[in-house]
Amino acid sequence: MATLKQVAAHADVSVQTVSNALNAPHRLKPDTLRRVTRSIELLNYKPNRNARSLRTSAVELIGYCVPSWPHGQTHLVMDQFLHALCTAAERTGRHILLFTAPTGIDGMPVYDDLHARRLVDGFVLSQTETHDPRHGWLKEQRIPFVSFGRVWKETTQPGPYVDVDGAAGCATAVRHLYETGRRRIAFLSWPRTSGLAEDRLAGWRTTCKELELPTKDLAIRCPEDMIDEGARATAKLLDAGLEAGTPVDGIVAISDILALGALRELTARGLTAGVEVGVTGFDDSPLASVVSPALTSVRQPIDRIATELIALLTDSPAPADPATGGTERLLQPELVIRGSSAPG
Amino acid sequence: MATLKQVAAHADVSVQTVSNALNAPHRLKPDTLRRVTRSIELLNYKPNRNARSLRTSAVELIGYCVPSWPHGQTHLVMDQFLHALCTAAERTGRHILLFTAPTGIDGMPVYDDLHARRLVDGFVLSQTETHDPRHGWLKEQRIPFVSFGRVWKETTQPGPYVDVDGAAGCATAVRHLYETGRRRIAFLSWPRTSGLAEDRLAGWRTTCKELELPTKDLAIRCPEDMIDEGARATAKLLDAGLEAGTPVDGIVAISDILALGALRELTARGLTAGVEVGVTGFDDSPLASVVSPALTSVRQPIDRIATELIALLTDSPAPADPATGGTERLLQPELVIRGSSAPG
Repeated sequence: MATLKQVAAHADVSVQTVSNALNAPHRLKPDTLRRVTRSIELLNYKPNRNARSLRTSAVELIGYCVPSWPHGQTHLVMDQFLHALCTAAERTGRHILLFTAPTGIDGMPVYDDLHARRLVDGFVLSQTETHDPRHGWLKEQRIPFVSFGRVWKETTQPGPYVDVDGAAGCATAVRHLYETGRRRIAFLSWPRTSGLAEDRLAGWRTTCKELELPTKDLAIRCPEDMIDEGARATAKLLDAGLEAGTPVDGIVAISDILALGALRELTARGLTAGVEVGVTGFDDSPLASVVSPALTSVRQPIDRIATELIALLTDSPAPADPATGGTERLLQPELVIRGSSAPG
Repeated sequence: MATLKQVAAHADVSVQTVSNALNAPHRLKPDTLRRVTRSIELLNYKPNRNARSLRTSAVELIGYCVPSWPHGQTHLVMDQFLHALCTAAERTGRHILLFTAPTGIDGMPVYDDLHARRLVDGFVLSQTETHDPRHGWLKEQRIPFVSFGRVWKETTQPGPYVDVDGAAGCATAVRHLYETGRRRIAFLSWPRTSGLAEDRLAGWRTTCKELELPTKDLAIRCPEDMIDEGARATAKLLDAGLEAGTPVDGIVAISDILALGALRELTARGLTAGVEVGVTGFDDSPLASVVSPALTSVRQPIDRIATELIALLTDSPAPADPATGGTERLLQPELVIRGSSAPG
């Protein structure tokens, strides 16, 4: 049996167009409709929701869309996350079906197709974007899903989610640097358009204020998550501190990549991370322990995230979390302390 | 329906023990056999190969075991590989089913179970180890599979494979450094136990000899794939070169991680990669373009690898490769040239 994507490729149209041909043919030009209809017939595509009866109910599959990244970007804990997700699903007798789809709303017909054909019973979403359109769409179609990550800048979340308290993670990093004697703690961030970044930055700012530490001119927004940008921002911070006679002695970076940039700039200046300047990253990616000094970093509880995602999606009894409960789980990250903030 | 793994967990034994209980009960102690049999009954586990008839033939699923890495290690192009594998499978109307299994031979009952229950029709293996036992086992059980990577140190490969010509990749790197004026080109390698490492090292050595370049004391085996080890090996090479009055001016690293270590050591000494010393990595991972100067690196043709894997597994017509043909595909990597070897 052909898939929606194969029909789209055959007719040389988008999956949305095929979906329209089936559900809203009046939206298509006659020529296009004819071409799509012909491909549907030739490929014997059956968008029949009764296809449900074809599949055994023995094993439920959960769909997960592999993100496609522009070259030069990566999800450094992706393999850890997938391993944890599979393990959690298998504990309930389920498996993960991987698929690809266009990003954003354009990919939704692929989700719809997989669900309609009963290949999967629900979806785990990740790489949640600010104003992510997928959640609302799936909710409207009554397709079960759970999200790793919140839909930022929406007051109500459109469905069940598991997320990590990024603000709390950065707050912990600031407190740790404070406790190791740092008094001028900067923050390396991403652009303002990222809801995730604003959340983590707020954790840094609030905690600095609580501890009566300065914040003015100490948050730098790096345009991209690159080692180079982290180094450049660090150079700027160190130079400004020297000029003003108030040297920066702590750096909380929003990612391990930016923290690696900070470490590189310190080394280039003959400074030692953990001695003159304490540095922390975020994600506790494999990079954190391949550098020297090793990087102190905020670790997301990947196994717990995966377990909660599967529990919320499948309604299995999940470990109760008195702090959140319901269908929302905000998990606490953990600071893994290494040489970049605490030598010896 | 319960899975083999669930039965094993329930009876608190390994999956191999459950498999033995079903196929070779005489090997088990009576107590253990009783416990496993009870779990099989309680969970209603049916290891019935006729389960085949339960599943619709509409969609074939291909199994891929997510590797579990010790913390601090990672597969930097994992998400690229998975995306390419899904795309290639979807082009043939198939999908990828992800699963977890114990490493090595201990995991084979999980493969057997997934296949016997007709959840998957075959497997894609990766992270092939020297003397990998999985290939022979699957072949013996007549379970379809294809391998990304050769089983090293075996004269005959136990099944179809796709691999990248690592020797040719390193040869290209040496030639590129030679053409940009380098005459003393070192090699950063992994331990001798890795068949993959020996293959790549051979490419460096042969090409150096062809070009009449020295190789003595210029290959260093780093005990681990860590930035630190790459930096330490580079320091050793640079020191030895200075002492002998024959400075190293090129470094071919077997991985991007080791190359990053080389870049770090050069920076620490006030040297510029691409100017005083040309440096190349391997994998063209996302790290290659987040450093400055960006890293010249040998890129594996991920999309082509995925397409060939799926073609070999499903017997779809594959692009003919006159150089290899049959069920073995040795693909040529490509050198992506950046600032670390060719400034400006």
